[in-house]
Amino acid sequence: MTSGLGLLFVVSGPSGAGKDTLVEAMRERRASLRYSVSATTRPARADEREGEHYFFVGRSEFDRLREGGRLLEWREYNGNLYGTPRDYVEGCLAQGYDVVMKPEVNGALAVKTAYPDAVLIFLVPDRFSNLRERLLARRTETNEEIVRRLEIAQDEMKFIRRFDYLVVNEQGRPEQAVVDLEAIFAAERFRIHRYPDDSIQRVESS
Amino acid sequence: MTSGLGLLFVVSGPSGAGKDTLVEAMRERRASLRYSVSATTRPARADEREGEHYFFVGRSEFDRLREGGRLLEWREYNGNLYGTPRDYVEGCLAQGYDVVMKPEVNGALAVKTAYPDAVLIFLVPDRFSNLRERLLARRTETNEEIVRRLEIAQDEMKFIRRFDYLVVNEQGRPEQAVVDLEAIFAAERFRIHRYPDDSIQRVESS
Repeated sequence: MTSGLGLLFVVSGPSGAGKDTLVEAMRERRASLRYSVSATTRPARADEREGEHYFFVGRSEFDRLREGGRLLEWREYNGNLYGTPRDYVEGCLAQGYDVVMKPEVNGALAVKTAYPDAVLIFLVPDRFSNLRERLLARRTETNEEIVRRLEIAQDEMKFIRRFDYLVVNEQGRPEQAVVDLEAIFAAERFRIHRYPDDSIQRVESS
Repeated sequence: MTSGLGLLFVVSGPSGAGKDTLVEAMRERRASLRYSVSATTRPARADEREGEHYFFVGRSEFDRLREGGRLLEWREYNGNLYGTPRDYVEGCLAQGYDVVMKPEVNGALAVKTAYPDAVLIFLVPDRFSNLRERLLARRTETNEEIVRRLEIAQDEMKFIRRFDYLVVNEQGRPEQAVVDLEAIFAAERFRIHRYPDDSIQRVESS
């Protein structure tokens, strides 16, 4: 599988770390960045648009994508299936767009296996107590769900070393985390392994 | 050898790539950045100040530093000796300052051996013909010296893959190269191997 011309950025980390806000901010700042739209079997909410927030698909269509190897990663959550369509990502990369996605931690590691050149960024809130506060403040989950998600978060932390970067989203300073992410997105383009051999050769012999 | 708290950035590449101008621009922009002052046996020029441009030392003092392992790298050029004093660099890093140096390519690789955590950036002009023009325009070298330096540059290109980043200093756009370097300097701090194990542990258990 070719990695295409663009770069793939995978922002993951525990629930409540601020992924949604920060990825949205990055999309606003970088015109060359496309958001990797997930497929889901969950029904669309009133404010969600097909192809923008999700590709809404039936269970049989989801199974077809998954069994055909057309999902980079997938998971079940609350009885619904979510996955990252490979074709959409590859299409964007081939056109030279960078792509950003924000899968769960296990999904991020699956993407890294499929695309070793993907840039994995682990986002953490500055303190766990703060994560808890944010989950409580958001109030879209029951207390039982919050406890379960915190347990998942503790577990996810074990995988930090398999990521490329760790960015701390400090309480009350999301703009700093945006600046940090922008530096990472910009700098990755200059890493030596991003230059194909023939481009180096061109420099050498010109 | 401990790498200290700061990060060590090594900007190298062929003569005429614009290292001096860009490193100077980085020093102006980043208050936390210290320039690694070299030791030399060459006499000071009128506009050069001790401890700012170089540490001016006699041959016997230079030999003492070198034989005592107190130079991270050294080389002879035009009959004069130049070297990077280890103590100065380590002192800055231990105090939490980042350090930037601009040694020759072989020196950069020697520094990487001594400090595996050093960030090596290879700077190239956008085209070799342009490099030649710059060397000609600078006119501080004889034609024979220019040809010799171009040959060295061709040779240096073979080592590009041992660097961490490649930044192209495009003709007439040095401000873009400065932006690129700033992103690299900022992003490196967030690379996962920069976080000591105990800091990750702290995140995990808090």
